[in-house]
Amino acid sequence: MSTPLPKLRIGILGCGVVGSQVAKQLLRHRQELSTRSGAELILTKIAVRDLKIPREGIDPGLLTTDSKSIVTDPEIDLIVEVMGGIEPARELILLAIENGKSVVTANKALLATHGADLYSAADARGVDLYYEAAVAGAIPILRPLRESLVGDHVTRIMGIVNGTTNYILTKMDEDGLGFDEALEGAQNLGYAESDPTADIEGFDAAAKAAILAGLAFHTRVTSTDVYREGITEITATDVAVAQSMNHVIKLLAIAELTPDDRISVRVHPALIPRTHPLASVRNAYNAVFVEAEAAGELMFYGRGAGGAPTASAVLGDVVAVARHLTSGALGPRESDYADRNIASIDDIKTQYLIRLDVADKPGVLAAVAQAFATENVSIQTVRQSGRGVDAELIVVTHGASEHALALTVKRLSQMDTVRTVESVIRVEGVVQR
Amino acid sequence: MSTPLPKLRIGILGCGVVGSQVAKQLLRHRQELSTRSGAELILTKIAVRDLKIPREGIDPGLLTTDSKSIVTDPEIDLIVEVMGGIEPARELILLAIENGKSVVTANKALLATHGADLYSAADARGVDLYYEAAVAGAIPILRPLRESLVGDHVTRIMGIVNGTTNYILTKMDEDGLGFDEALEGAQNLGYAESDPTADIEGFDAAAKAAILAGLAFHTRVTSTDVYREGITEITATDVAVAQSMNHVIKLLAIAELTPDDRISVRVHPALIPRTHPLASVRNAYNAVFVEAEAAGELMFYGRGAGGAPTASAVLGDVVAVARHLTSGALGPRESDYADRNIASIDDIKTQYLIRLDVADKPGVLAAVAQAFATENVSIQTVRQSGRGVDAELIVVTHGASEHALALTVKRLSQMDTVRTVESVIRVEGVVQR
Repeated sequence: MSTPLPKLRIGILGCGVVGSQVAKQLLRHRQELSTRSGAELILTKIAVRDLKIPREGIDPGLLTTDSKSIVTDPEIDLIVEVMGGIEPARELILLAIENGKSVVTANKALLATHGADLYSAADARGVDLYYEAAVAGAIPILRPLRESLVGDHVTRIMGIVNGTTNYILTKMDEDGLGFDEALEGAQNLGYAESDPTADIEGFDAAAKAAILAGLAFHTRVTSTDVYREGITEITATDVAVAQSMNHVIKLLAIAELTPDDRISVRVHPALIPRTHPLASVRNAYNAVFVEAEAAGELMFYGRGAGGAPTASAVLGDVVAVARHLTSGALGPRESDYADRNIASIDDIKTQYLIRLDVADKPGVLAAVAQAFATENVSIQTVRQSGRGVDAELIVVTHGASEHALALTVKRLSQMDTVRTVESVIRVEGVVQR
Repeated sequence: MSTPLPKLRIGILGCGVVGSQVAKQLLRHRQELSTRSGAELILTKIAVRDLKIPREGIDPGLLTTDSKSIVTDPEIDLIVEVMGGIEPARELILLAIENGKSVVTANKALLATHGADLYSAADARGVDLYYEAAVAGAIPILRPLRESLVGDHVTRIMGIVNGTTNYILTKMDEDGLGFDEALEGAQNLGYAESDPTADIEGFDAAAKAAILAGLAFHTRVTSTDVYREGITEITATDVAVAQSMNHVIKLLAIAELTPDDRISVRVHPALIPRTHPLASVRNAYNAVFVEAEAAGELMFYGRGAGGAPTASAVLGDVVAVARHLTSGALGPRESDYADRNIASIDDIKTQYLIRLDVADKPGVLAAVAQAFATENVSIQTVRQSGRGVDAELIVVTHGASEHALALTVKRLSQMDTVRTVESVIRVEGVVQR
C-alpha cells in the first residue's frame, strides 16, 4: 500500500442493465479491483442516451450523452462497451482503438458480424480487445478456449447459449406447456422480450455459435456462416415423444470439425439423451459442452445473462486488460491461422427423429422403410403405436445428411398411406463410442 | 511462416502416464503449438528414473536420468514438472526458478504443502509458475478463478475433485455395492491404486481444496489447514437412505467464506440433493461448483485425471508461458493480499443426517428430540420406521456446529433407548434462499 499504484481511467459506453452493474461494482469494489489489477481503476465517464433517468449509486457528474468524447478522451485508457447493437457501437469501438484504447465489450452481435475488422484494428494498434461477456454471460468459456485449451485440439462444441429458449423448453418439458403458453410465461417473468424473435428464432444463439466456432477452430466465422433454425415449431407432442424416449429437446449451438477438416456451425433444436450433461441444464441457465482430443469432455455451466453475471465477466476482462496496461503486455491476439472452410448444412450428417401420422394397415411400415432405403437413409429404430384407423410411427435414423433427409421427407409426404409428416427433429449428443 | 519464430526449449521432469503424453503431444502437434505460442517449441530433454524402459514414440536421445542437468541447462527456457511427490520435485523446481526458468507443474501435493515458497521464488526471480493440471486434471478451473472471476467475489467452492472416490460412490449408488466391493472394482479397472489411502481418506482432495481455497480467497492455504474425512465409513445403507431422500452421497472439497470473513476449507462425504448440478457428475468425472457474488452459480466439469486430459492442461500452460516468454510478459502472480484466517471445523455450521437404531417403544422420539434440544441443535425433519422391537430413526438437522453435533451424538449414544448411532453424515448443497 506504500507505493501508489499507476492510475487507469475507464470510460463506459452504455448504462443499461449491464452498464449500471459494471459501474456500481467498479465503484463498490474499487480498492480490491485495484489491488488485483496493479493499477488504480478510476471510473471517469459513462455515456448514456438520456441524462434525466435517475441512476442510483452513480454520480450524475460521470454521465454524458457525448459518447464520442469518451472514446477520444486522451485521459481515458480503457473503454467498456455495453450499449449493444451494431451502430454506433462499431464506430465507437474503432474510434477508441484508433485512439490507442483497449476495449472490453459484451457485444455478441457486433463481434459475430464485424469481429474481423475489430480484431485487425486492435492488432494493428497494439491494444487489447476482450469479450468474455459476449458468450454465455458469466460463464468463463472464451478464456478457457483461448488459453487453457490452446495446447489441445477442440473437435466439437455443443452449447445451450440462449437462456430464453432454454427457459421455454424447460417449461414445456417439466410443466407440459405448449410453445405459445411457455413463451407467454417467459415474457411475463421478463425472461423473453416483447419481440422475442432474436431468441426464439435462434439469431442470438447463432451469433454466439459464430464466436465459439471462430475461437475453437482458429478461423474467421460470422453469423451468416451459421445454419439456423428456431424453436417455434416444437410442439408439446414433440416434447412428450422425447420424454417417452428418455430424451429432452434443447436449442443447441453446435460447432464441429467435419471429417474433411471443415467447420460445421449451426443452431437448431435437437433431442439429447437425459443422461447427457447438457440435459440437466434447466431454466435460464446456459452451458457449453466441449469435446477436445486430449482433454476429453468438458462442460462449463452458469448464468448466461442478467446484469450482475454479465458484469462479472466484463470486470474479469477489465482486470486482465488493466494488468496488461500496467505491465506493457497484451493478451492473446485473434487466432485465424487455420482458415478452415465452412461446410454446408447439406453435407452434415446428424441423426433425425421423424414422426409420421400413417394409416394403420398392414404393409405401411414396409412402405415407409422402403422410402428411407431409397434415399439411402439408414433407420436405427422404429416405434409404432396404433390409434384406431391411424397409427403414429416414430423413426430414428442413423447419421444422415440434411439433403438425403429432405428427399426422404418429400417422398414420405407423397405417399398415400402417410397422412402427415408431423415433425422432423435432429438427435444429438448420442455417444458414438 | 516467412519470419522464423524464436526458439523455446523445454525440459520435462518425469515420463510416466502424464509426462509421456506431454512429450508425445509436444512432438506430434509441434507445428500448431508453435504457431499458437509465437515460438518454436523444442522438446530438449526428459528426465526419467530408468533409461531401459521402452518409450514408444520418444527418441531415446532425449532421455537422461540426471534431472539436475535439465533444470540447470542454460539452453532450456521452460521446465515441465510431472514427476509428482514432494522431493526431489520441490528442490528441482526451486533450482529451475533460480536458474531463471519458468515452470509448469501438475504437482498438487507439492503446491498444497510448499506452494508459498515456490510462488515467492518465482516472483523474486520474475518467472512464471503455472499449475492448471494440479486441480481437476483437464478442467480449466484455476485460470477462470485467477483471471475470469478476478473482478467478482467468490463466496463458495464445492468440488468433486477426486475421480477414484467419485467412481466408488457412483458404483455404490447405481449398483448398490458396499464400499469394499466398489473399491475392489475400482482397483481392478485401474481407477484406484493398490494402496488407495490418498484417495479414499481424502488426502488428494484436501491438497486440491487447499489450492482452490488459496486462489479463491487470496490467502495462503496449505493441506494442513484442511479438515478431512474420507469415505471408508460410508455404507450401502447410508447410500440407500440418501436415495430414499432423493439425495446422493459425494466426497466434497469445500472452501467457503464464513460470515465473519474467515475461510472454511474441508473435505468430507456429504449428501447433496439429486437436483444439484454436482449430483449428476458420475464415475471418475470431476466438477467444481463455484458461487460468486455477481456471477451467481458456475460449474466446471470434465475429466479429473488420466494422461491425455492432464497433458492437455499442462500444454495449455506451456503455451501461455511460451507466449509470455516471447513477449517478455508474466502471468498473474500469487494473490495473497486478503490474508484471511482459517476457521476451525468446530465453528462451521452444516446440516447433518443422523441415523439411529432405537428401541421401538413410546417416548423414544421425544427423548431423542430432547437430546438435540439440550445441545441447541435444531431438527429439520425426522423419519421413523419400525422394524419389530427396533426402529430406525433418521434425523436431519438445521445448520449446526461440529462441536454441538458431537455433544449431541455423545448424549444420544449414552441413552438406553438408543441402541446405536449408525451414522452421522453432513448434508450440503441445499439451497438456502
